[in-house]
Amino acid sequence: MRRVPISIAAWTLAICLVLGGQSAAAQNLADSYRSDANRLIEAALSDSAAYDRLTDLVDRFGHRHSGSVSLERALDWILEEMEADGLDNVHGEGVLVPHWVRGEESLDMIRPIARALPMLGLGGSIATPPGGIRAEVLVVGSFEELVDRSDEAKGRIVLFNVPFTTYGETVQYRSRGAIAASRAGAVASLIRSVTPYSQQTPHTGAMSYQNGVERIPHAAITVEDAEWIQRMSDRGERVEVHLQMNARTLPDVPSRNVVAEIIGSEFPDEVVVLGGHIDSWDVGQGAMDDGGGSVAAWEAVRLMKELGLRPRRTVRVVLWTNEENGTAGGLGYRDAHRDQLDDHILAMESDGGVFKPSGFGFTGSDEAFAIMQEIGSLLVPIESGVITRGGGGADIGPIMQEGVPGMGLSVDGTRYFWYHHTDSDTIDKLDPREVALCVATMAVMAYVVADMPERLPR
Amino acid sequence: MRRVPISIAAWTLAICLVLGGQSAAAQNLADSYRSDANRLIEAALSDSAAYDRLTDLVDRFGHRHSGSVSLERALDWILEEMEADGLDNVHGEGVLVPHWVRGEESLDMIRPIARALPMLGLGGSIATPPGGIRAEVLVVGSFEELVDRSDEAKGRIVLFNVPFTTYGETVQYRSRGAIAASRAGAVASLIRSVTPYSQQTPHTGAMSYQNGVERIPHAAITVEDAEWIQRMSDRGERVEVHLQMNARTLPDVPSRNVVAEIIGSEFPDEVVVLGGHIDSWDVGQGAMDDGGGSVAAWEAVRLMKELGLRPRRTVRVVLWTNEENGTAGGLGYRDAHRDQLDDHILAMESDGGVFKPSGFGFTGSDEAFAIMQEIGSLLVPIESGVITRGGGGADIGPIMQEGVPGMGLSVDGTRYFWYHHTDSDTIDKLDPREVALCVATMAVMAYVVADMPERLPR
Repeated sequence: MRRVPISIAAWTLAICLVLGGQSAAAQNLADSYRSDANRLIEAALSDSAAYDRLTDLVDRFGHRHSGSVSLERALDWILEEMEADGLDNVHGEGVLVPHWVRGEESLDMIRPIARALPMLGLGGSIATPPGGIRAEVLVVGSFEELVDRSDEAKGRIVLFNVPFTTYGETVQYRSRGAIAASRAGAVASLIRSVTPYSQQTPHTGAMSYQNGVERIPHAAITVEDAEWIQRMSDRGERVEVHLQMNARTLPDVPSRNVVAEIIGSEFPDEVVVLGGHIDSWDVGQGAMDDGGGSVAAWEAVRLMKELGLRPRRTVRVVLWTNEENGTAGGLGYRDAHRDQLDDHILAMESDGGVFKPSGFGFTGSDEAFAIMQEIGSLLVPIESGVITRGGGGADIGPIMQEGVPGMGLSVDGTRYFWYHHTDSDTIDKLDPREVALCVATMAVMAYVVADMPERLPR
Repeated sequence: MRRVPISIAAWTLAICLVLGGQSAAAQNLADSYRSDANRLIEAALSDSAAYDRLTDLVDRFGHRHSGSVSLERALDWILEEMEADGLDNVHGEGVLVPHWVRGEESLDMIRPIARALPMLGLGGSIATPPGGIRAEVLVVGSFEELVDRSDEAKGRIVLFNVPFTTYGETVQYRSRGAIAASRAGAVASLIRSVTPYSQQTPHTGAMSYQNGVERIPHAAITVEDAEWIQRMSDRGERVEVHLQMNARTLPDVPSRNVVAEIIGSEFPDEVVVLGGHIDSWDVGQGAMDDGGGSVAAWEAVRLMKELGLRPRRTVRVVLWTNEENGTAGGLGYRDAHRDQLDDHILAMESDGGVFKPSGFGFTGSDEAFAIMQEIGSLLVPIESGVITRGGGGADIGPIMQEGVPGMGLSVDGTRYFWYHHTDSDTIDKLDPREVALCVATMAVMAYVVADMPERLPR
């Protein structure tokens, strides 16, 4: 059933355009998988199965925060569904995960105007003392400004009003804001939510403390309110707020990475891993972050099964737990499979939303990169074959550090951070066809790497 | 000081392109006002005065709901500022306005999942009985579907899950939803917020009851939750919610239309009226709806004053009160000025947000329309000279019905309804230059109509 040439004319034109300058070997690899790739793409795009499954997941269980009942119930359901799909070796792999609980929380402006401010405590934050913290706000635009104005910070609540540039840059204020504010003598810290767009939308996310630096509560407010407080402050008005947070960090609890496979026909011990993280923050539905990536990887493997495509090497879908506040799933996977990592051929992750895919960012050798580009040519007809250098993901990071080549799905990220870690990360933001394109893209790449005659070089 | 030709070359080119086919008279009117128009445009665009004034207004007073202290304080402040601007005949004109107070309100899903749902009661709604209303939800997609399924509606809470098409079409479910639901025997009604986009954002707005039809509470939920409840309902799940609203309609209270003028040099009794509504809903800052339109009209008149441009006829800025829930300002203005309406030359309103303007929609005679197009040619250099047929506004509607020609500012409306009647109608959504362009556009049009030798024909 495999490698029957179909739709030759259309594919040939697309491939000629792409591979004009590439080697005959490259063309041979692409040529020999064109039919299988085509079948996977057609199957993925033939219905809305992936979108429907994702909807089912997020509507049934809602958000899936580490330590929550809903996460574990979702894992149970996924294991049952994977069994029903007929996948091999379906099981959970236990890991202990942090258990941070938000509790009741609120932020009220006391002066110059009395108003409740939408807010979300940041994951890992301590609570305020009973009765909360009432203090004047000091607004700063950077860590540097805070250092310059540290004589004004003592006893105050520092607000980092830092506009979004890139996620990597701006998220520093979420990650390290409480440390910097505490060092300056502040009693609590607030950030402008890490987003380029807001409709009075607070965004949560992970934060950290540092040994030797006193821990203070840390929370996010909306872009609108951060700008408003900035304006008041610029006019010389004294802004006072009252912050109440009852967050608690409870003892770690057991969770699981969910694992399922199609066992390889020739080299069962050689593994291509693909997945997303199944946990989410305790807001919204976690549909983009990262229910979508989890279901896309799962559906990619299910499609292979459905089409009878058993590759030479094992394809393993892993839905990692606890990416958001600890990466315990990714670390646990590395530790549990440490002696198999030499035979981990490739690790692939989707954690940027299942919007229209463009290809992958790949981290590995030049030789492997060239092969990725060859395989990418099979995705040109659905415009998702662009392979760029550099890429991976938080969950596969630990095994990539051990030398496993890694890649992350690249998608249209225009709106990802609008919804990221908010109550509006919901299924209605996604498009069934775009989700299906993500499935097709991951399926083709994973299948060819798992099946091609030569093992992907390191 | 007036009509000194400047920037002749640039303007001539633009005007030649536009007026190539028009009459000599048209060219004469445009030619004779090119210099004044140019001065108004340059002055409006020279700084961010209008944006700054709008910021000052919305930051000082917040939203300005009919019956609120903040509205009346804002009116006092505006009157003082208008005096300081040196405008003529600055005064308030008293009108009684409705006083609906939202009170505490909440909506909780009870089953199949327990969750608080973001909501906003609709303006004018009655309260729920003490303890609230707990009932199963019936989801319908139209009034017609509700009629077809009226045997299922009795004792339930009807949810109209109607996607946004046009505002005029979709808002019917906000306006008349409680009447239709009550007729079908429902105990309360909910709507999907009237918006093409949502980040878990509920939108309030006016609603109505009908004599002879029992009044039931009426509230808006978010697009996300309406879609979610729809999906659960489609799967046959029984959705139950608990609605609590303590809204009250108190006796009418006094408010004011704010009025200021530049008295005409030759025909002081002939009046060009321009304005926006200064009241807002009780959410957000009312920056777009309609602080922006109010300040743009006010600044247009202030600019004339600043430039020493006293037109032959009187230019009158009116900031109408209570557009949102009663139009008492617009009706009161008509009644107070009924014997002067024959000498109302033109009424102009901005109530679609002060985004990038494109021109005006005009309602009046063909002869007047042709003149508007001539004047519009003066706005071609800032791309806001397109005059289309049909247009006006809720506040000038009552005097337009008495025969006064009317026009509404046309702007890029892409995102207006994303923010409309929500907590995210805040100043940060606006752009200083776009606000200034609105000021320039209104100033040029109002000034030329007020000053041109011939009275605008009806």
